[in-house]
Amino acid sequence: MRQSHLFAPTLREAPAEAEALGHRMLLRGGYIRPLAAGVYSYLPLGQRVLRNIEKIIREEMELAGAAELMLPSMQPAELWHQSGRYDEYGPELIRFHDRNGREFALGPTHEEIVTALVGQEISSYRQLPLRLYQIQNKFRDERRPRYGLLRCREFAMKDAYSFDTDEAGLDAAYTAMRAAYARIFQQCGLIFREVEADAGAIGGSGGSHEFVALAEIGEDTIAVCSHCEYAANVEKAETAPLQQSEHGADAGVPERLYTPGIRTIEQLAVAGYKPEHIIKTLIYVADGTPVAVLVRGDHEVNEIKLMRHLGAQELVLADAETVLAAAGAPAGFAGPLKLSVPAYVDREAAALRSAITGAGEQDWHLKNVRPGRDFTLERIGDFRIAREGDPCPRCHHPLESYRGIEVGHVFKLGDKYSAPLNAVYSGTDGRMQRMQMGCYGIGVSRLLAAVAEQCAGEKGIVWPMGIAPFHVHLIRVSAKDEAQRTAADTLYSRLQGEGLEVLFDDRDERAGVKFHDADMLGIPLCLIIGKGASEGLAELKHQSSGRQWELKLDDAADFIKEIVQSEMRLKENNK
Amino acid sequence: MRQSHLFAPTLREAPAEAEALGHRMLLRGGYIRPLAAGVYSYLPLGQRVLRNIEKIIREEMELAGAAELMLPSMQPAELWHQSGRYDEYGPELIRFHDRNGREFALGPTHEEIVTALVGQEISSYRQLPLRLYQIQNKFRDERRPRYGLLRCREFAMKDAYSFDTDEAGLDAAYTAMRAAYARIFQQCGLIFREVEADAGAIGGSGGSHEFVALAEIGEDTIAVCSHCEYAANVEKAETAPLQQSEHGADAGVPERLYTPGIRTIEQLAVAGYKPEHIIKTLIYVADGTPVAVLVRGDHEVNEIKLMRHLGAQELVLADAETVLAAAGAPAGFAGPLKLSVPAYVDREAAALRSAITGAGEQDWHLKNVRPGRDFTLERIGDFRIAREGDPCPRCHHPLESYRGIEVGHVFKLGDKYSAPLNAVYSGTDGRMQRMQMGCYGIGVSRLLAAVAEQCAGEKGIVWPMGIAPFHVHLIRVSAKDEAQRTAADTLYSRLQGEGLEVLFDDRDERAGVKFHDADMLGIPLCLIIGKGASEGLAELKHQSSGRQWELKLDDAADFIKEIVQSEMRLKENNK
Repeated sequence: MRQSHLFAPTLREAPAEAEALGHRMLLRGGYIRPLAAGVYSYLPLGQRVLRNIEKIIREEMELAGAAELMLPSMQPAELWHQSGRYDEYGPELIRFHDRNGREFALGPTHEEIVTALVGQEISSYRQLPLRLYQIQNKFRDERRPRYGLLRCREFAMKDAYSFDTDEAGLDAAYTAMRAAYARIFQQCGLIFREVEADAGAIGGSGGSHEFVALAEIGEDTIAVCSHCEYAANVEKAETAPLQQSEHGADAGVPERLYTPGIRTIEQLAVAGYKPEHIIKTLIYVADGTPVAVLVRGDHEVNEIKLMRHLGAQELVLADAETVLAAAGAPAGFAGPLKLSVPAYVDREAAALRSAITGAGEQDWHLKNVRPGRDFTLERIGDFRIAREGDPCPRCHHPLESYRGIEVGHVFKLGDKYSAPLNAVYSGTDGRMQRMQMGCYGIGVSRLLAAVAEQCAGEKGIVWPMGIAPFHVHLIRVSAKDEAQRTAADTLYSRLQGEGLEVLFDDRDERAGVKFHDADMLGIPLCLIIGKGASEGLAELKHQSSGRQWELKLDDAADFIKEIVQSEMRLKENNK
Repeated sequence: MRQSHLFAPTLREAPAEAEALGHRMLLRGGYIRPLAAGVYSYLPLGQRVLRNIEKIIREEMELAGAAELMLPSMQPAELWHQSGRYDEYGPELIRFHDRNGREFALGPTHEEIVTALVGQEISSYRQLPLRLYQIQNKFRDERRPRYGLLRCREFAMKDAYSFDTDEAGLDAAYTAMRAAYARIFQQCGLIFREVEADAGAIGGSGGSHEFVALAEIGEDTIAVCSHCEYAANVEKAETAPLQQSEHGADAGVPERLYTPGIRTIEQLAVAGYKPEHIIKTLIYVADGTPVAVLVRGDHEVNEIKLMRHLGAQELVLADAETVLAAAGAPAGFAGPLKLSVPAYVDREAAALRSAITGAGEQDWHLKNVRPGRDFTLERIGDFRIAREGDPCPRCHHPLESYRGIEVGHVFKLGDKYSAPLNAVYSGTDGRMQRMQMGCYGIGVSRLLAAVAEQCAGEKGIVWPMGIAPFHVHLIRVSAKDEAQRTAADTLYSRLQGEGLEVLFDDRDERAGVKFHDADMLGIPLCLIIGKGASEGLAELKHQSSGRQWELKLDDAADFIKEIVQSEMRLKENNK
């Protein structure tokens, strides 16, 4: 494409509110523009990257036996009532009434629609399994849209759904989709980890994995083993029980400690007590019932794990009044010896031989408290958040911790939706049974943003070849030099003839403007037709490695084609 | 694709409310399913046709120098207020509030958004011209959604916009787009006419053409010359003035006729007066001011032409009271001799030498009324709707009339949007000027429906090769016969190896079910692997012509490839 036809307005400065480097560079390179908070226009360069990602997704979905369809964004509210998510979804779900007063939701996802559709059309086991997907804009009225395309209100998503007769079928679909996802992200040039995840609000029968792009600005934390394959979202990451500590093995019976105004681990630490020798006692309310949770002073409660353990829908920290009633003392002085509610004790708190705890009395703590001796250990479990350096639950080597961006998520739904929406089939024995479903999402525009974040430098984004808006940026330095004009025109058609996607900077701008724009656009290869043209020479620059070559004009097309193919083949080989 | 993986539930009967044959067959073939009134899911077959159409559109848009972008569906209401269309659009515009109470419209089209965007990013004549397009679902809350995909509330549309410095640039863009549109519709296998159209509500500086698919169920009527190139939407079609009639050349002065209770042309005809010798007088209110319109009894007023002539925004038939005040008599008895409001006289009414008119008095008409003698002719013009058989305004051969479906529309907007949304650029002299815009739309899902309507028979839709969901339907008659299994597997991979899109009916169903489904799916070529397989033979059926061939298994792939290529080449040659 000729750059004079392209609408890619570059900016010298990104707006101050753009915090993430990738977001700033997408704005500066003319890839996207905001229309409203969390609502973006994709200018032609951004749209080209999106379409390249979509192409990779379509190829992999086809290999995974999934057929593409397109479901409406206008979704009758009735279906959301039927699934029970109409209220659950809260203000994120955009709702409106049509001219006849019928209520609609603006699709944030399509479990309801696809389940109702398949349930209505499929009646026999002979028509299963089915795997369906679509690529489409979704709408979620996020409370805090941020980081440009990373958290948007209108965004492109690939959502897929599988329908099977039994769990074995669901397992097969789930495995195929996981493998397809890994290949998709590889081909997009993304640095990512696949981690075990909590199924969360959408969740059904179990299994869930997240695909997380590594990035400092990411809102997710993942724990990855330094030695084995283990990797999990921090909400899900298991901890390995430590050996019982020798510390305090010879401690005597509990003694009262006067600790006026000392309510936090930090304050106790100042007073000379090590956080790892303290047990903190927190009071929560789980579905209306108060419970206590005990973890070591240097650990944090993992509320998701606790909720799963309790089978609770809702878990919140108790208010002051409830704490006083449950622990006989205000928060900070609660302790296991004076509780009137059940206590859930983290395994590592339970392993201490001598601990500081609250005394259950204002301004007092206890020392020499031994779990199991001084208070009973009826409910022990893994209730804390895994930390960097913790031993891996599989191999006991230390875990590493990363920040990341969730770009894909796969779930085994089981009959979570097929039950309320009545997606049933008659089995081999003629009896009606519920379909076993899985759902599989990729944030397409978020994936673009995650790659941009990983590939952005201070000059611009250097795109991986697999999804770059163009393969080659052909830059004619001077529009007036006859030799350059001829050479550039010839190479433009020759490169295109080789099937390469070429952006031809045919503008009548100063050389400095062109080079500056080229850095910001970040197309992987720059072929510069400058003064050397009169001697039959051009200059090629490989943006990500910084390598440069002087090429004969006649050889340039072949040379470039080889680089592009080898970088695309790399992609292929990952399959 | 294996049919066992495809989600294409066929139906024996279409729902009774599906009136159009194409719509019925899209439902029966498992191409689409309704989710709500005017809201459809595209099942995989429908989605494949859509994507084929999109591919053709993208190729042609690129040739026309247009770059693809993607604008949001969530559009801040402010921009609609700025363009003045917020109120104008009425209840068709879906509106909602976000969680912060800000009002949004759900994009029915994108003039506001794209004009604001380009106006904000482009500042110099050096950055123009620009041609941009997108393919996207739009939302219009139609009062009466009907005929399936023909009139929907959520539908796929290609919208393009051009931005130029002057009218000559706009003309060039407009011409390029018109040519691209004609090639797009040709490649989709559509039977269509390009007609002059009225720019209507969207309209700006002038020029507008419609692309109309011929179909009996169409809501549009077009007039096409039987001899020359002239073709126009009936709202726009000009009429040629007739020669002055000899009838009544010797008639005397007006005489009163007692016509008690006779208020219509039909009643006058029964009484022995020919409609073409009657002048009817209608009272309208144009932007609040009453006017009279005179046309021959056998003609109909063209309200659009009248509005354009008057420069009126609104035109409605007057109520009884207004008629009485303007004409001194109730509707049916109004006549040109007793009017107290200006009279706009159609050229052909003015050409009569002796006419029957209302007398301006209840229960009375006049005969022997001669326009120009008995009442003045100050305001003569073309105010009637063109009819089949009328002389062509260019060559005077008779016009033909067709029903059709509007599938594309191109407009010269001029500065209709660039003025209110301030899309200006600095010209060569440094002065700020408004961009000259054009807009160009294709109803993508409507185009699918129009082709379906034209290609539907009682068995199913026989798709044109250019947009068919697959090129070949490979049908293995028996899943149990070893020779058939081997032959079908071999041909499946060989056909795919040739780059053909193949649907392989690998299901374990009865032969009758498979053939019946194949007719309903309407894939252009059916390759049947049946009993002949053991002798190395297969049967090929060309669905649109009904031709059949017995082929050697070894020759089948080459033979089919040649047919597909020749039908695709036909498409190419039309470029």
